[in-house]
Amino acid sequence: MTADRIVRPGLEGVVAAQTRLSSVDGEAGELIIGGFPVETLASQAAFEETVYLLLEGVLPNARQLTAFRGELGSRRACSPEILRVLQIAAAQKIPAMDLLRMAVGILALGTDGETSIGDDANAALKLVAVFPTIVAGYARLLGGLEPVPPRTDLSHAANYLYMLFGRAPTPDRVRAMETYLNTVVDHGLNASTFAARVIISTQSDLISAIVGAIGALKGPLHGGAPGPALDMVFEIGEVGRAESILREKIERGERFMGFGHRVYRVRDPRADVLAEAAAQLYATDADKKLYDLARHVERTILRLLEEYKPGRKIQTNVEFYTALLLHGLELPTDLFTPTFAVGRVAGWVAHCFEQQKQNRLIRPDSEYIGEKGRHWVTVTER
Amino acid sequence: MTADRIVRPGLEGVVAAQTRLSSVDGEAGELIIGGFPVETLASQAAFEETVYLLLEGVLPNARQLTAFRGELGSRRACSPEILRVLQIAAAQKIPAMDLLRMAVGILALGTDGETSIGDDANAALKLVAVFPTIVAGYARLLGGLEPVPPRTDLSHAANYLYMLFGRAPTPDRVRAMETYLNTVVDHGLNASTFAARVIISTQSDLISAIVGAIGALKGPLHGGAPGPALDMVFEIGEVGRAESILREKIERGERFMGFGHRVYRVRDPRADVLAEAAAQLYATDADKKLYDLARHVERTILRLLEEYKPGRKIQTNVEFYTALLLHGLELPTDLFTPTFAVGRVAGWVAHCFEQQKQNRLIRPDSEYIGEKGRHWVTVTER
Repeated sequence: MTADRIVRPGLEGVVAAQTRLSSVDGEAGELIIGGFPVETLASQAAFEETVYLLLEGVLPNARQLTAFRGELGSRRACSPEILRVLQIAAAQKIPAMDLLRMAVGILALGTDGETSIGDDANAALKLVAVFPTIVAGYARLLGGLEPVPPRTDLSHAANYLYMLFGRAPTPDRVRAMETYLNTVVDHGLNASTFAARVIISTQSDLISAIVGAIGALKGPLHGGAPGPALDMVFEIGEVGRAESILREKIERGERFMGFGHRVYRVRDPRADVLAEAAAQLYATDADKKLYDLARHVERTILRLLEEYKPGRKIQTNVEFYTALLLHGLELPTDLFTPTFAVGRVAGWVAHCFEQQKQNRLIRPDSEYIGEKGRHWVTVTER
Repeated sequence: MTADRIVRPGLEGVVAAQTRLSSVDGEAGELIIGGFPVETLASQAAFEETVYLLLEGVLPNARQLTAFRGELGSRRACSPEILRVLQIAAAQKIPAMDLLRMAVGILALGTDGETSIGDDANAALKLVAVFPTIVAGYARLLGGLEPVPPRTDLSHAANYLYMLFGRAPTPDRVRAMETYLNTVVDHGLNASTFAARVIISTQSDLISAIVGAIGALKGPLHGGAPGPALDMVFEIGEVGRAESILREKIERGERFMGFGHRVYRVRDPRADVLAEAAAQLYATDADKKLYDLARHVERTILRLLEEYKPGRKIQTNVEFYTALLLHGLELPTDLFTPTFAVGRVAGWVAHCFEQQKQNRLIRPDSEYIGEKGRHWVTVTER
């Protein structure tokens, strides 16, 4: 055991799983999801097609897609117990990610017979189906409104927007949401996906694994900080003020939210997909001026970073365009990470099934650096 | 990145953390907890002393111990929301580990002002303090009884037994429970502790990390299977029948629950500690005949394993004596894993704080083995 022992506190470069779900090549700036470059898949697939692709390994044909939409659509409703938790949490203004963790945690509570969660295969569909209902319902309650019950005749993405705003969304908005959810659906062994695989590797159940993943996604080092990326754009307010404000910030040593990524050394391919989706959305359905300003701020930041930190090659990351796109869809900042979870839950579930298929308990070593051989003295002698 | 890339699906031999909390030496059969050999610590310390040791790095003096007991004692009560979940879950007969995950998940729900959970330091105390209340309350409800509210004048272990049975326990029983909780309080980077560290490494919160850990502990490959270890002893029933029944089982290829461990190649040191604790408990306060039978079954199994599988050196593991000791304390089988969690939660919490102190996001790689460059075809053409 000692001969080939390796110390890697962040586990970088240690392959903890083989996967057919997604490939992240940070050197090449390449992301493959279910065999497709993210650029190809994200802007064309309905979210249900992407989920099916991750779960089944192939895209569904028309008949399969209809059936799959039906399976998800019929599982959208929240139990009365979850609705109750939403209400109590809203009164307390509990952060949305904590609420999501709580609500998903009690998914099986107060259900039986037809409403029971069932085995992991059923739980997977329930999880993917119910995330939007929980997030949208909670957003409504936080805003002093009643939750809007789900509709079964809308697509997953369209129904999410419908439950958020209480009206059927335009096709442009639905397309923007489909593209967003597809873009973030899976991304190798990120910390939340890895947490889910660690938990399921003990032969625990799917809900336990997903609840763990939500807890990990909440952390600011993972998915917890896409909100502030756009604050800077709002602060700048108009194109003419960008350079002076940004130059001042960079000289004060401030870091720019939405730039730089631990994995990608070149441009995050998701940034381009989301930028394109944002361009389309803002062209027809949102504040085009804000879009132009955001692009100008981005270009200015990249130019200044190259000027002040030459050779560091810091690039726009996915957070910047997530913020722009979701803002264009009128989502408040505190829904950005929960909406990320609405997409990512499908990746978590698919990873759990992959882990189950060729399972091995994930159990690394620790290195003991404490004392040894301490002598016991009773409390009165201490 | 590719040069020193290592493929280790179960992460064996990969050191993912340095720790001062515990040292597991599977070759030597040695377990150190907070600097003490488990044999020294477990049978002498009160559980509160062990928790303090893990959190502070030293044993408390008399004044510190009194204050710490007070901190824990004042946090034992469950919120009305948790009690409600206990009742609904009991009506549904939800497994106790799922219930524990649900209840801990909503720890912050419906609390404010003085009852709020507060920061991670406060949450740590609340978590350690409230686990017994949840587990005991749920056990009572499952048995058709009302939960017994906690007492603040009893030690942690004594109060747990009090809440389970509704009467103050004898000193022998308290000592047995203290020893059990101490023995299982920490054990290197087991899967649940690792799950907690992965989650907290994103800078998420302590409750999210512990909820993930509970989900991992539930899995049969981790803490989920100590129950059946004693079933065989009951099945055998008397000393004279042991050899023939066991010989038949081994020839049919049955595996013996409670024997063998992935880490320990020699005898698990915890087995001896728990065997000694069981010997004391059964000598005064439980069915001595059952104890003698269990020891006889153990010796017979070890002899037969050496006969049929020479050189494999399969040893009694902690599950066998966990089952014997907890059975002696009159705990039903389905409380064995939740009671393990009552002890282990202190280790989880201490590991989370250790991770926070020198944090690095835990994010391993995956290896992509799927297709690349698939071409998109619309659904009608599939």
